Amino acid sequence: MNNIQSYIKENKDRFLNELIELLKVPSISADSAYRNDVLKTAEAIKNSLEKAGCDAVEICKTDGYPIVYGEKIIDKNLPTVLVYGHYDVQPPDPINLWDSPPFEPVIKKTALHPEGAIFARGACDDKGQMYMHVKAMEFMSSTNQLPCNVKFMIEGEEEVGSANLGIFVKNNREKLKNDVILISDTGMIAQDVPSITTGLRGLSYVEVEVTGPNRDLHSGLYGGAVANPINVLTKMIASLHDENNHITIPGFYDNVEELSDEERAEMAKAPFSLDHYKKALDINDVYGETGYTTNERNSIRPTLDVNGIWGGYTGEGAKTVIASKAYAKISMRLVPHQDWENITQLFKDHFESIAPKGVTVKVTPHHGGQGYVTPINSIGYKAASKAYQDTFGKTPIPQRSGGSIPIVALFEQELKSKTILMGFGLDSDAIHSPNEHFGIFNYLKGIETIPLFYKYFVELSK
Amino acid sequence: MNNIQSYIKENKDRFLNELIELLKVPSISADSAYRNDVLKTAEAIKNSLEKAGCDAVEICKTDGYPIVYGEKIIDKNLPTVLVYGHYDVQPPDPINLWDSPPFEPVIKKTALHPEGAIFARGACDDKGQMYMHVKAMEFMSSTNQLPCNVKFMIEGEEEVGSANLGIFVKNNREKLKNDVILISDTGMIAQDVPSITTGLRGLSYVEVEVTGPNRDLHSGLYGGAVANPINVLTKMIASLHDENNHITIPGFYDNVEELSDEERAEMAKAPFSLDHYKKALDINDVYGETGYTTNERNSIRPTLDVNGIWGGYTGEGAKTVIASKAYAKISMRLVPHQDWENITQLFKDHFESIAPKGVTVKVTPHHGGQGYVTPINSIGYKAASKAYQDTFGKTPIPQRSGGSIPIVALFEQELKSKTILMGFGLDSDAIHSPNEHFGIFNYLKGIETIPLFYKYFVELSK
Repeated sequence: MNNIQSYIKENKDRFLNELIELLKVPSISADSAYRNDVLKTAEAIKNSLEKAGCDAVEICKTDGYPIVYGEKIIDKNLPTVLVYGHYDVQPPDPINLWDSPPFEPVIKKTALHPEGAIFARGACDDKGQMYMHVKAMEFMSSTNQLPCNVKFMIEGEEEVGSANLGIFVKNNREKLKNDVILISDTGMIAQDVPSITTGLRGLSYVEVEVTGPNRDLHSGLYGGAVANPINVLTKMIASLHDENNHITIPGFYDNVEELSDEERAEMAKAPFSLDHYKKALDINDVYGETGYTTNERNSIRPTLDVNGIWGGYTGEGAKTVIASKAYAKISMRLVPHQDWENITQLFKDHFESIAPKGVTVKVTPHHGGQGYVTPINSIGYKAASKAYQDTFGKTPIPQRSGGSIPIVALFEQELKSKTILMGFGLDSDAIHSPNEHFGIFNYLKGIETIPLFYKYFVELSK
Repeated sequence: MNNIQSYIKENKDRFLNELIELLKVPSISADSAYRNDVLKTAEAIKNSLEKAGCDAVEICKTDGYPIVYGEKIIDKNLPTVLVYGHYDVQPPDPINLWDSPPFEPVIKKTALHPEGAIFARGACDDKGQMYMHVKAMEFMSSTNQLPCNVKFMIEGEEEVGSANLGIFVKNNREKLKNDVILISDTGMIAQDVPSITTGLRGLSYVEVEVTGPNRDLHSGLYGGAVANPINVLTKMIASLHDENNHITIPGFYDNVEELSDEERAEMAKAPFSLDHYKKALDINDVYGETGYTTNERNSIRPTLDVNGIWGGYTGEGAKTVIASKAYAKISMRLVPHQDWENITQLFKDHFESIAPKGVTVKVTPHHGGQGYVTPINSIGYKAASKAYQDTFGKTPIPQRSGGSIPIVALFEQELKSKTILMGFGLDSDAIHSPNEHFGIFNYLKGIETIPLFYKYFVELSK
């Protein structure tokens, strides 16, 4: 494509300032107190898509927050790219751990980002990565280089489960018809190591409640004689992993895809420093399933983690009480072919079956989603790979992510097209954590790489 | 003793009303907001002791709440009884579970208390039981039947650890000199089954903290690859009991007193209905150490209970986070000869030793106290036994309590005298819980029985 680099150079400051304006609005979908900010952000996205050259931009109402849709159809016979992103953000808590206010974006240089990075909630996830596509669209249309049709679908409920997006997709199959779905909501291995995410883990999230005696008891008078719901809960949770950190739920691994030695060898080529990893987390060692590397444990293997636990007296000092109830939130990350609803049922059946006498157990499913894996021989993958080669001078490494974007599996099911995950963030960008940031290098590199994906996708589709 | 029953009949209403007035003042030692009420209660105790016939009644300042002391020395050559009790009460929380306001005493009939019971915080623990001694004193002195010397020591910090009582005792050995210590702060088996508590369990209370990564992590990107502090904590706590619910801390049982078959057979004579026990707690089965009965598990055996646990996301809905830290409060009930400071050290050493790589563990001792056991062949025990025989028509059953009154061991150590625990409450009185109450029958039976203890103690001491 012509003069993309010079276009970026000329417009760099405006690209940054527009994103910074977007980041100033706290579009926190999880907290209804920010409802107006979320709606205001939807309006801003609408305007930015129109400015970028989209036609028929609309704010589509849902039972929750609206979905912003826009398109540019230049020739029905040409391929169509559907861009997905989200304009809502995670809550900033714990707020006191931020070095600067989460919704007052500042640019600071860091070791990994010598050109500077924008610090703000949503800088990377996903306002920054989503806006790269808006600016890439602006370039292509303003320079008459848009090589195909494009559709944008930007939602406002990704951080709270995308419940209404699924309904929207089901009800608008024709409108959303496309040849490939393009998403930037993942990461890359390193600034100089581009990668394309070829797999996402599924998710099953449940809450458990263990009930013992009908009231809190004096631990002196009853201790040792009745089942203590907290002690019981710890025993039950502990039993979910064996001594090799293998998950013990019967049937849990039945459909787990086992990668070939070749595939694992390919994965192992990704540069990774265990020392850096441990230092970054300030841990003296890693911990996980026997027989797998750290990169395999958090990508191609299913996991079970307690995300929260509570029960009894948690205030200051001491209270000698045996609690009537104990609770935990438990999530399982799943790999392709594990069906999340099936796994949720297996967990429920098993967890209820291991409850000892003296307690009753309740398992409440929260939500979940299927995993996803995309082939590396598709036109979309090849186009993305060539685009990265042009802008990074290297072939990107196919990478499985441990994270979950449940909606991706639904896209394939409903729209019958593959998703290409072109992520430009880094693990160190602290998404979902305090001091989230997004490198200026990464932001501009994304804007530079995306138009090339369009170009090669059209060429390879011929 | 003459006309004790007629004296009680004549003064019954006054005895009840005086106690009710005492119960109206929220003397909650744990909450500084009630400081004036606690001090006001100390004044009320002082006045009641003077009215009951004590001399030299004083409010002894401490670094915390004062100790009310009073005495009646009739003959230096006669034995001296030291009465201990406390005028502070537990916080009433959870307040919403009370059927009537905790500090607005009401008399209601219940299945176990057909004559009615006083419902209020402190009704049984310990205002009601402590005031029985004041009224017994009133009877003996007003009818010139006090057979020996008596000393009262009523504290206001029992519910918060009695920190200053220990100092007071150490500094006043001569003043507190006595031949037997008499306490009513325990229970009896049933209305028609009098019992004397011959043993109390010791206590070691610790707080543990497990730290993994230096910040909360995204459970998708890191799940399965780093030690999750909550999962680790559940594994560590679960490992503290084996499959027989035996505690696994090395050395934990080294000094545990093993009762003879005869002693266990004696204990087993105490009437106990497992069905009633389970029904009262609404549990389908009991749970505890293999090889011991329910009554043994909560009295002659040491235990380990988690009193509180917390970590990660505990709000509504779901958050896919791996917490940086997880916490638990753990208490161990100890039996005679287990030294609480030694056990605390054993716990600390063991718990830190079982921490897996990838986490660091911190154990913080809160507080503790020694267990206590009193022989059943002492003059004090025999005197109490005869007193019960007169008023209940039955020989009381010696009973080990699962609870702890750490100060009792200190009394023996500092004052070189045995403590007799004449308790008139019932397990169902809900001390430390909502709707605490004390039966009118029990209250008056205590006032009737106590003077007989004095009489027999003097007779048997000759």
